[in-house]
Amino acid sequence: MRLSKFHLATVKEVPADAEIASHQLMLRAGMIRKLASGLYTWTPLGLRVMRKVENVVREEMVRAGAVEMLMPSVQPRELWEETGRWEKFGGQLLKMKDRKEQDYCYGPTHEEVVTDFARNELKSYKQLPLNVFQIQTKFRDEIRPRFGVMRAREFLMKDAYSFHLTPESLGETYDVMYTAYSRIFTRLGLAFRAVDADTGAIGGSASHEFQVLADAGEDALAFSDASPYAANIEKAEALAPATERPAPTAALTRVDTPTQRTIEEVSAFLGVPATQVVKTILVRGREGLVALCVRGDHEINEVKVAHLPEMPDESELASEADILAATGARPGFIGPVGLPESIPVIVDRSAAVLADFVCGGNQDGTHFTGANWQRDARITRVADIRKVVDGDASPDGKGTIRLGRGIEVGHIFQLGQKYAEAMGAGVLDDQGKMRTMYMGCYGIGVSRIVAAAIEQSHDEAGIVWPEAMAPWRVAVCMINPKNDAAVSEAAESLYQALSQAGIDTLLDDRGLRPGPMFADMELIGIPHRVVVSSRGLEAGTFEYRARTDAEARNVTREELFALLG
Amino acid sequence: MRLSKFHLATVKEVPADAEIASHQLMLRAGMIRKLASGLYTWTPLGLRVMRKVENVVREEMVRAGAVEMLMPSVQPRELWEETGRWEKFGGQLLKMKDRKEQDYCYGPTHEEVVTDFARNELKSYKQLPLNVFQIQTKFRDEIRPRFGVMRAREFLMKDAYSFHLTPESLGETYDVMYTAYSRIFTRLGLAFRAVDADTGAIGGSASHEFQVLADAGEDALAFSDASPYAANIEKAEALAPATERPAPTAALTRVDTPTQRTIEEVSAFLGVPATQVVKTILVRGREGLVALCVRGDHEINEVKVAHLPEMPDESELASEADILAATGARPGFIGPVGLPESIPVIVDRSAAVLADFVCGGNQDGTHFTGANWQRDARITRVADIRKVVDGDASPDGKGTIRLGRGIEVGHIFQLGQKYAEAMGAGVLDDQGKMRTMYMGCYGIGVSRIVAAAIEQSHDEAGIVWPEAMAPWRVAVCMINPKNDAAVSEAAESLYQALSQAGIDTLLDDRGLRPGPMFADMELIGIPHRVVVSSRGLEAGTFEYRARTDAEARNVTREELFALLG
Repeated sequence: MRLSKFHLATVKEVPADAEIASHQLMLRAGMIRKLASGLYTWTPLGLRVMRKVENVVREEMVRAGAVEMLMPSVQPRELWEETGRWEKFGGQLLKMKDRKEQDYCYGPTHEEVVTDFARNELKSYKQLPLNVFQIQTKFRDEIRPRFGVMRAREFLMKDAYSFHLTPESLGETYDVMYTAYSRIFTRLGLAFRAVDADTGAIGGSASHEFQVLADAGEDALAFSDASPYAANIEKAEALAPATERPAPTAALTRVDTPTQRTIEEVSAFLGVPATQVVKTILVRGREGLVALCVRGDHEINEVKVAHLPEMPDESELASEADILAATGARPGFIGPVGLPESIPVIVDRSAAVLADFVCGGNQDGTHFTGANWQRDARITRVADIRKVVDGDASPDGKGTIRLGRGIEVGHIFQLGQKYAEAMGAGVLDDQGKMRTMYMGCYGIGVSRIVAAAIEQSHDEAGIVWPEAMAPWRVAVCMINPKNDAAVSEAAESLYQALSQAGIDTLLDDRGLRPGPMFADMELIGIPHRVVVSSRGLEAGTFEYRARTDAEARNVTREELFALLG
Repeated sequence: MRLSKFHLATVKEVPADAEIASHQLMLRAGMIRKLASGLYTWTPLGLRVMRKVENVVREEMVRAGAVEMLMPSVQPRELWEETGRWEKFGGQLLKMKDRKEQDYCYGPTHEEVVTDFARNELKSYKQLPLNVFQIQTKFRDEIRPRFGVMRAREFLMKDAYSFHLTPESLGETYDVMYTAYSRIFTRLGLAFRAVDADTGAIGGSASHEFQVLADAGEDALAFSDASPYAANIEKAEALAPATERPAPTAALTRVDTPTQRTIEEVSAFLGVPATQVVKTILVRGREGLVALCVRGDHEINEVKVAHLPEMPDESELASEADILAATGARPGFIGPVGLPESIPVIVDRSAAVLADFVCGGNQDGTHFTGANWQRDARITRVADIRKVVDGDASPDGKGTIRLGRGIEVGHIFQLGQKYAEAMGAGVLDDQGKMRTMYMGCYGIGVSRIVAAAIEQSHDEAGIVWPEAMAPWRVAVCMINPKNDAAVSEAAESLYQALSQAGIDTLLDDRGLRPGPMFADMELIGIPHRVVVSSRGLEAGTFEYRARTDAEARNVTREELFALLG
């Protein structure tokens, strides 16, 4: 592409409402323009990137055996009534009436339409499994559209739906989709994790979110540095330490800690590391108080606590009065030693392997040193009740947990029979019996991926595209071409040669001075920049710089092709 | 593609509301499924065809220098108010309110949005000309959606918009688009014509419709059999005959035609061909009656008559009383000889070259024979006032006029400054002066092309795709593969070899009997069918049949590849 024939429009000023890097950079690079709240025009530059994403998604869906189709974006109310979602979907559903006063919505998703298609189209188990997908514009009427195309109202989505006779078949296709999604995000050059989004209610591996790792992400994640393991931070499992609990060596000793209540205070006062202290929290359980014990450097995870059999759905801290009544001490001095039998003691896995530890004395102004489980303190149950921390062992046994944030760009889901049952979508099995189908659905936010990639990869100068998403892989820039025919000829010839070698190349023939020209190429994130200058031509070299290089260097034509090959 | 992995669903029953061949065949072939009135799901088979069309359109637009972008489908009312089209567009505009009670519409076209984009984006004449396009889902709330995707409410359209400093620049891009459109429809294998749709009011070549020739078309066309010439039948010019008017040889003679009033009656009664009779019609002009004379075998063209300077905008036949008062005779016996001087005599070009002709006697029950212009009858003006007929010379001098019907699949339009002026879209010229831009718009109905192609090319067995639009070029069918491993292996091997040769091939591995299998392949219109059977394998041949062949024939593998290469 010759840039003079392309509408590139980088800008300096960015509206104040562009809060995050990707939004700012997409506006500055001229990839998108705002039409109205949550509605964006994709300029030629922006669309070029989005199409690259779209094509990778399509190729991998086809490779995975899905077939592409296209359903209407405008959907009749009747179908949404069948699933009850006409009301339940809420304000995000953009509703409209046609000229005959019939109700429709702009499809935010297509479960109803595809299930209607399937119940008309599929008659026999022999037609199953079937996995169909589309790449289509969707609309969700967000209350507060923001962050540019990251949370736009109109967006491009790949949505796939699979139909099955059995849950096993659904599981197989789900796994195929999991693999396809992993290939897609890998090919796009994104650091990502598939996060188990299982609600626990259904059981099994019913849902995964694919998250692109980026600081601006909305979701807090825990992930392994050496494996695909990832989870929402609230759900990440904290493994039991690999070590056994040592045998007691110290005697239980009550010590005075007159004003020391927090772990930091106690541990500094007694000269004991926080990892050797047991922190005890009393909460209201289903039947009276429950004691939760974690290591001094750990935090209670309320989501995990809520899943304990002793706990109601919403856990609540015990009041100071309750604590005083039950233990005789105030918060800050509570410990597992000598607690009333009626209080279950739930000990976190990491706290359970401590010996000779420090804990509250259940008497104001005192703690115990040399405390030991079993000998001095009951354990009702050992459980995972703490938040994971950076440096924990990964629950899959591979690598170390890192904490970070993620942007959800994909979601795969085992829907089971929910929609098929509501809408009566069944097929005849090999016995001639009508059976409700099982369904899966698999979404990818195509337009959102563009923004997520920028969040993950940018610097002060602009976007740093992964090669697969770059609008062009290579930019050929010419210095002073108007006054130097040799330069423009050499640049043109290089551009032609690169293009013919199948390398997606941009020729910057706008005749800008080097400064603004280079700034544009960096802003729009072209991975490889080649400069053609008269000085270089004399030396028989081009100046080359990868977007991520600190310095440019001179290379011969052969070296350049080898670099880009 | 292996057909067993593809959701092909041909059907026998077609809903009664499918009135035309393309609608019926798209349903029978399983290309589309109706979701609601004017809303269709494109099945994998249908989408495959539509994508082929889309890709050709995109390639040729890019080749022609247009750059692709993507504007929102949901558009704010404010922009439509600026051009006055929020009201003027009428009921086809699907309006909606978002959760904040703001008004939007589902874009039926994008002049407002693109002009808004241009006025924000374009500042200098140096950025012009710019030609942008998108391929996008549109919505028009048709009063009576019908004919399947031919007149659906939701449809896929390619719309392009160009911006210019001068009308000359607009004209140049218009010509480029004309050529690009011609290439697109030629590549798609369609018989089409570009029809001058100039209203005459603006002047110049301001608008062309691209029409696919098909009997089911809504528009009556006249087109050359030997050139690209075409026009709406009402506007097609009838040339003057190449011959000069012969000199008179007969004497003007009044003959009795007591009950013969029509051309057929007079010509039979007098034994003179209709081509030697002049038919005279009296109409109300701006100032009194006007006589229109055409050859007996021709018809008056009211559109052309309405453009005569003597005529008001709406022409009207003279009443019998008026005719009698002016001529002394009743309709059926009127002729140009001896008409009052106050009545202008407008003579069609073909009638004007007649000599020794027959015409009405302006006296009930009589006609003249041997009548001649000038000698016997005044000519106020010779003009083109008749309808063209099949067999006329083409107005461009090349070939012969044929009459037929067309389906509009593309429209190119010089908008001039209409939208740019209404919305204040200007750029600075080289003098630093603000100038309103000139615009062109260029649409193609991508989904409609699919239906139009079927209307143009089908038979009793089903669709007959042009190669460029076929879902697959070749179908490899196997006979009795389950009981004959050699057949399935040979078919598989042939399928692989064809695919590797870059030939888009379908392997029908469903295991159907030959009858239903062949019927499906004919219905879905695959251009080339290859049958692998044990008998053929023994003979070292495959059975080959082009979709348009009457009979199948046996070919060797080499012959087959040569055929398909």
